[in-house]
Amino acid sequence: TLVGASERPFRLLSLGHVRDAVEPGSAEGEAIPGDATQRDALAELLWSGRPALPVKDADGKALGRVTVEGLVKRAARPQ
Amino acid sequence: TLVGASERPFRLLSLGHVRDAVEPGSAEGEAIPGDATQRDALAELLWSGRPALPVKDADGKALGRVTVEGLVKRAARPQ
Repeated sequence: TLVGASERPFRLLSLGHVRDAVEPGSAEGEAIPGDATQRDALAELLWSGRPALPVKDADGKALGRVTVEGLVKRAARPQ
Repeated sequence: TLVGASERPFRLLSLGHVRDAVEPGSAEGEAIPGDATQRDALAELLWSGRPALPVKDADGKALGRVTVEGLVKRAARPQ
């Protein structure tokens, strides 16, 4: 039976920072800090039902956006 | 700062069974059982990099498929 991945994709995302998953473009709503984890960003995206969130650095400067689609790709087993 | 959702969407998915998130259609690869949790299904989908997985019941009968897109919608904060 196919129930094996369990925590692995979420753990993988918890090792990466949002700043390393930033894509060009803007998004609506409150920004997530670049030093949050990619797992935190996915959780916020899912919970809020939004496809993208703006990302800001520690000084509040806009860095771009993070997307469900981008994080889904980053959660895959490394090849 | 926007780091609040943490475990909530994943916990929400862990309360639902795959059989309750089944969509019509087929998908490639090994099937996931209908009595697995929706969280397990999302983990498997992300880890395998696939957009959909087939779902089977306890007798091995095909029930349909479960998709990243469908689970993402189910992980949102209840309105």
